[in-house]
Amino acid sequence: MDKQDMQYPGSRRIYVPGKLYPGIRVAMREISQSDSLFPDGSAESNAPVRVYDTSGPWGDAERSCDLQKGLPRLREPWIASREDVKQENDGGPLCAAREDAPPTQRAYALRGIITPEMEYVAIRENLGREEAFKAIYDQFPDRKSRPEGMQMLLDELGTGMPAPSELEKEEDFSPASLVARNDLRQGHPATFAKETQNNCPSFYTPEFVRDEVAAGRALIPANINHPEVEPMAIGRHFLCKINANIGNSAIASNIENEVLKLRRAIHWGADTVMDLSTGENIHQTREWILRNSPVPIGTVPMYHALERCGGDVRKLSWDIFRDTLIEQARQGVDYVTLHAGLLQRFVPFTVKRATGIVSRGGSIIAKWMLLHSEENFLYTQWDEICHILASYDVAVSIGDGLRPGSIADANDFPQLAELEVQGELTRRAWKRGVQVMNEGPGHVPLHLIPENMRRQLEWCYEAPFYTLGPLPTDIAPGYDHIGGAIGGALIAQRGCAMLCYVTRKEHLGLPDSEDVREAVVTFKLAAHAADLAKGHPAAQLRDNALSKARFEFRWEDQFNLSLDPQKAREYHDLTLPHSGAKKAHFCSMCGPDFCAMKLSTDLRAAFSSRPRTSTDNANV
Amino acid sequence: MDKQDMQYPGSRRIYVPGKLYPGIRVAMREISQSDSLFPDGSAESNAPVRVYDTSGPWGDAERSCDLQKGLPRLREPWIASREDVKQENDGGPLCAAREDAPPTQRAYALRGIITPEMEYVAIRENLGREEAFKAIYDQFPDRKSRPEGMQMLLDELGTGMPAPSELEKEEDFSPASLVARNDLRQGHPATFAKETQNNCPSFYTPEFVRDEVAAGRALIPANINHPEVEPMAIGRHFLCKINANIGNSAIASNIENEVLKLRRAIHWGADTVMDLSTGENIHQTREWILRNSPVPIGTVPMYHALERCGGDVRKLSWDIFRDTLIEQARQGVDYVTLHAGLLQRFVPFTVKRATGIVSRGGSIIAKWMLLHSEENFLYTQWDEICHILASYDVAVSIGDGLRPGSIADANDFPQLAELEVQGELTRRAWKRGVQVMNEGPGHVPLHLIPENMRRQLEWCYEAPFYTLGPLPTDIAPGYDHIGGAIGGALIAQRGCAMLCYVTRKEHLGLPDSEDVREAVVTFKLAAHAADLAKGHPAAQLRDNALSKARFEFRWEDQFNLSLDPQKAREYHDLTLPHSGAKKAHFCSMCGPDFCAMKLSTDLRAAFSSRPRTSTDNANV
Repeated sequence: MDKQDMQYPGSRRIYVPGKLYPGIRVAMREISQSDSLFPDGSAESNAPVRVYDTSGPWGDAERSCDLQKGLPRLREPWIASREDVKQENDGGPLCAAREDAPPTQRAYALRGIITPEMEYVAIRENLGREEAFKAIYDQFPDRKSRPEGMQMLLDELGTGMPAPSELEKEEDFSPASLVARNDLRQGHPATFAKETQNNCPSFYTPEFVRDEVAAGRALIPANINHPEVEPMAIGRHFLCKINANIGNSAIASNIENEVLKLRRAIHWGADTVMDLSTGENIHQTREWILRNSPVPIGTVPMYHALERCGGDVRKLSWDIFRDTLIEQARQGVDYVTLHAGLLQRFVPFTVKRATGIVSRGGSIIAKWMLLHSEENFLYTQWDEICHILASYDVAVSIGDGLRPGSIADANDFPQLAELEVQGELTRRAWKRGVQVMNEGPGHVPLHLIPENMRRQLEWCYEAPFYTLGPLPTDIAPGYDHIGGAIGGALIAQRGCAMLCYVTRKEHLGLPDSEDVREAVVTFKLAAHAADLAKGHPAAQLRDNALSKARFEFRWEDQFNLSLDPQKAREYHDLTLPHSGAKKAHFCSMCGPDFCAMKLSTDLRAAFSSRPRTSTDNANV
Repeated sequence: MDKQDMQYPGSRRIYVPGKLYPGIRVAMREISQSDSLFPDGSAESNAPVRVYDTSGPWGDAERSCDLQKGLPRLREPWIASREDVKQENDGGPLCAAREDAPPTQRAYALRGIITPEMEYVAIRENLGREEAFKAIYDQFPDRKSRPEGMQMLLDELGTGMPAPSELEKEEDFSPASLVARNDLRQGHPATFAKETQNNCPSFYTPEFVRDEVAAGRALIPANINHPEVEPMAIGRHFLCKINANIGNSAIASNIENEVLKLRRAIHWGADTVMDLSTGENIHQTREWILRNSPVPIGTVPMYHALERCGGDVRKLSWDIFRDTLIEQARQGVDYVTLHAGLLQRFVPFTVKRATGIVSRGGSIIAKWMLLHSEENFLYTQWDEICHILASYDVAVSIGDGLRPGSIADANDFPQLAELEVQGELTRRAWKRGVQVMNEGPGHVPLHLIPENMRRQLEWCYEAPFYTLGPLPTDIAPGYDHIGGAIGGALIAQRGCAMLCYVTRKEHLGLPDSEDVREAVVTFKLAAHAADLAKGHPAAQLRDNALSKARFEFRWEDQFNLSLDPQKAREYHDLTLPHSGAKKAHFCSMCGPDFCAMKLSTDLRAAFSSRPRTSTDNANV
């Protein structure tokens, strides 16, 4: 697969410069649109749409990337300029220069410092909204002169909410109707506040990012030894993020494949990628992935530690684990999953569960505790672990080793007991300057999902929540990505900050790259649905643009604005393959005589007072 | 595709007899399971699982079906025995014998009559739970002697809730833990009541079914001229149902294809099917579908009426429409979508919408009103329409012609204004004895979905709600089935009674039979997730059985209990194709050394006091 295969049609890479740090250039994708054409031959331009782009240099058609050389080291000058890190004794990777001042985004935020990473995040989260606002405003300073679509866009840019239709302001509609409608509209922000505790600000500033990181409500996973990473934030007051898992196992897969999976995952929109390799060449696989990844990379170091023991849990020890953790931290891993909340006393409670312990990391540590009759060393050595993590700004994702593996086990005692300990560990990690998030379930029926979110926010002091799905049923193997998207959208709407994707091969086999695509796009859909629901100020712009293109039969624009343009086009072509059909003012679903969109356009013409449509009245 | 292709592996058709009406035999599918095998060589049997079956005689391997002859006329004797219908003057179909006593399930229910249809529904909704309960109870009358899995099953059968683990009752666990857990458990029923207004009874009786139908909270679509139908109920206190749309259009498709789509749709689990044909041979296509369908068939008669006018909306009239409606009612259509709530005065409000009117039926009637400057004849002729419908027990699905076609238009004035009129029409139809449901959106962001459900329940007097999705975003063409499942699960949890499927070809092209499969299974997943969340007493049995099979590495059982066994098996085989892998105590995701399930089984053995596992302690 070469670079050309992973470009979006009708799109180009743009870079938005910083203000505090003019040197930073925030990567975005801009989707161009064709003009709206009207029956009288007139046209109206449609502003390009800027979307979040996770593909890094790989997604920039004008840059060449070399797998062997790795990506440019974007953050190197930022890290160096802070003068708080040094090369390690062996001349190897960077680490903290002073024990009392860890080089973590959290520590900087607590000292009131805005880092380039924070400004990068602020610009990125606005999705170029500021630019778009300015462009329209400059072009049409007088409200009256603005084309209708642009005014609508401007209203949305300004408030983050759909523009109240101009219609409401006209005089010929009953006050009762307007009250009813306005009532509903004005209800939205209150709804957000009450149901989701999840308001997004109307505009992202670097200060806002800093304050969220300082409060622990957000993290920016960015190891000082992973300068290739393009900064991103995980937190419930930001866009909902998604993670894709890759990694070889003893059964299948190889290194090239894994890097291809990485590229494919970030092309489709994965915000972070976890390398869950368990087979041979763990270190080397990870090195290739890190050097070629513009997104944060997470791992579960326990897998590597166990590999070092030849897979024999008995031989596992704190010393081996610590060495593994340090190795990964030095290498540049941005966050690690540690099942430190799984305590010895919880294990007996899992015995009569329907599905026991289903977390790999959790079951390894549980078995170790059983064999050694000792407390979980991840828990007992937590402070030292945090010290290691802080020295490299590795974030910790406190794992949920006792997550339910079936509907029958959802929200049971072992699960919730571990969550409480995750909260305690969160506080302790924060004190050491470590950035933290908490992992969550798992298999949970819909009505028990809000409980998970509520307790996590309460017990873990609003640290970001990062869930696997959740899956709202056990009976859908082959379709678990869809179940995961249902549960994921629901919990993200209520404040879950990142969703770990579930592929359709879950419970059945290893995902291939087509499964990765399907899963990433599916979870992007779920995350985006949640972003709309939690009122992210820029989320709806793309929906509005796509719907306008759809209504105006601009098929190419409709495809290009989609989450998966290739698939949209392919499905359209299956029924109407001729290129002329891309300009047809109908589609295959209803045919030309029954087209609701076409009839509706006729209606619009009939009611419109615009001169260009009056000639068409005879045809409605 | 022959009959053999549409059988489920490891399954057989069973028939459960009625009690009030011993002659009725309710069709179900029973999935057999293999024994659980333990390390000491002992075994434990696993009860077969009964699941809802929509495939009718087509799904009974022991019955032969002939497309040309149609299905057996199951309900013929029931209808005849009521002695309230006569053959029409031309010797054709049946119709009401007396004007004051329409032969509708609603009218019977209001008179206190329990029909065979109602008892059929009651038995069907219990999913054979009564039988399963009895079998276990008879086999192991003494609680102590019951195998653990069976006791758990029994507890669930009795209460509809997951059994509290035996573990909680043991003494060596802290009271605080137990309080926390019990608190959570006991919270469930209250949660249902408050959040969903949607409690399911712990057991379905024919009386309950009758009362729900009488109250208008449920309907049993069953035209007296569609005796082939196996009765089913649509209502929020029952299992959530799904509808699949089929139908040829001017662009593609043919009759044989449509019947195949019907068979495929009901094989995968569609509870009703709508024939939305708009091309030639509308009547004949419908005839083939009706005579071969064990599920209720719905239509949008406006499409046929317009076809009669050569596609010219100008020529449309009440007379033409009435004749079409009567033709379809006589033919046996079980429910019809009528866009009667779309009033003339609402149309101008749609002009400045982002996507105008996107309903085909809605745009046809809107255009007619515009051309004729007259009120919607479906509204003005409502009483006569209801009279026609009541004479054949055709249920009405009051359409939402102004449903939002984009996120920008969600919950706007035209949509809600029409919903209010739907409520008025509901009451008037009920007075005529007609069974009613209301159609709902469409494109709605997640945070506005509850509002839709709440207003529909309030304004339409708790008549069943039947939604198209809703889709929580516009940007996912190619994945709209997944968006629809997200919105669908959410609204079904809150009381939506039936979900109309959305295929991945939505907005792009016509679905083929593989798209139908994908969409039906996806919406089954969503509906099932909602059933779990609203506490349907039998919904979780299948999840529990599948999870137990998964935990015990009974791969074949795991596949067979899935919504789509073929796909589950196919995905498994892609990574581990050898038949030996079906018995392996690990899978491809983690490999033998990292298997959480296996480690967890070892843990269980270590903690268990059962003799058969004590010998394994050395191996954990």
